[in-house]
Amino acid sequence: MSKFLVVFSGGMDSATALYKVIADNPSSEVETISFNYGSKHNEMEYQGAKKICEKLGIKNTRISLDFINQYFKSDLLKSGGEIPEGHYAADNMKSTVVPFRNGIMLSIAAGFAESIDADTLVLGNHAGDHEVYPDCRQSFIDPMAKAIEEGTWKKIKLFSPFCNITKTDLVKIGATLNVPYELTYSCYNGKEKHCHRCGTCTERIEAFHDANVTDPTIYE
Amino acid sequence: MSKFLVVFSGGMDSATALYKVIADNPSSEVETISFNYGSKHNEMEYQGAKKICEKLGIKNTRISLDFINQYFKSDLLKSGGEIPEGHYAADNMKSTVVPFRNGIMLSIAAGFAESIDADTLVLGNHAGDHEVYPDCRQSFIDPMAKAIEEGTWKKIKLFSPFCNITKTDLVKIGATLNVPYELTYSCYNGKEKHCHRCGTCTERIEAFHDANVTDPTIYE
Repeated sequence: MSKFLVVFSGGMDSATALYKVIADNPSSEVETISFNYGSKHNEMEYQGAKKICEKLGIKNTRISLDFINQYFKSDLLKSGGEIPEGHYAADNMKSTVVPFRNGIMLSIAAGFAESIDADTLVLGNHAGDHEVYPDCRQSFIDPMAKAIEEGTWKKIKLFSPFCNITKTDLVKIGATLNVPYELTYSCYNGKEKHCHRCGTCTERIEAFHDANVTDPTIYE
Repeated sequence: MSKFLVVFSGGMDSATALYKVIADNPSSEVETISFNYGSKHNEMEYQGAKKICEKLGIKNTRISLDFINQYFKSDLLKSGGEIPEGHYAADNMKSTVVPFRNGIMLSIAAGFAESIDADTLVLGNHAGDHEVYPDCRQSFIDPMAKAIEEGTWKKIKLFSPFCNITKTDLVKIGATLNVPYELTYSCYNGKEKHCHRCGTCTERIEAFHDANVTDPTIYE
């Protein structure tokens, strides 16, 4: 029997991945791991992550990566500049890339998984991330999965169910799984209410609209 | 022109890798990155790392990974049990594996490299590590290198010059490069003097002996 460790930010994508893993593996153990890497929106994301884990009765471990905010260059970070407005795939959104973030989160999750006897990691990346974030693409996921499998005694697997579907299709799947999207958080500005202008807010609004699913988000 | 970022613990292997990179690329910029992951010997290793960087006049950045000591299971860690004695390749040395340590260090180094405009990472792993540490083998290094290249905008490369040579051959190379081995530290017990009984001390003694290089280490 598998034990899953889901990389869970509290955003829509990882929440949907979490609900999918639980639905598809009803008798398996599932834990979550979250990271605070000093982004402007980590705290708001995590409030939702905590509520969802409590609701589901599953364990969450949160790990602080202070060095990212301290040493890495990205406008997503508290140490970075303003969050750009506009469409997610646009060139100006490149300033929000946190270099190799998924590689770092997956590596730490792999080591943690080996320590808690989990055998499968889950990441909620999707096709809409590909243009701006190189560490969300299949061309990254495949060798990373191989590196994790070869580099751990337990031969840990990586499951990335949405890597080649759009956020709209992800929302359609989430709606059938009753993902509590009202508890999830996306906005890169990290304020109480979603700004509705940044790349992730724009993407969030479009995904609900195109999926024909009611958007429960309270926008500014 | 390349800019190199060497993962530098202060041990013999990474010190030799650092000296090789500097010798082979005299006009390139070289920086080092070190990690404190809460092992019993991190502090002693780092004292040497600092001295070597000062001697060479190159920059070092040290990153704390407190979560490893807190959450990971390994006898190498302060939170773990006794360091086993005996030969490095023996089965009992498995208790000193820090799960996916090289994956974690390389991933963070990749993100940091992207932030400082370095284009090549350097890791000093060697063939003697293969039996006990899955994240030192070529079968891990190859996909990890691919994941780093695909997952970074700068297409960062991984250089692992000793992956398939023995520690004895590494010492022979180091001797020709005048690596100050007296400043390097190996002992897993992390005391002032090398214990000469743990796996790394045993390996260190054998490597100098077999390479026919004078061992400058002061043992207990």
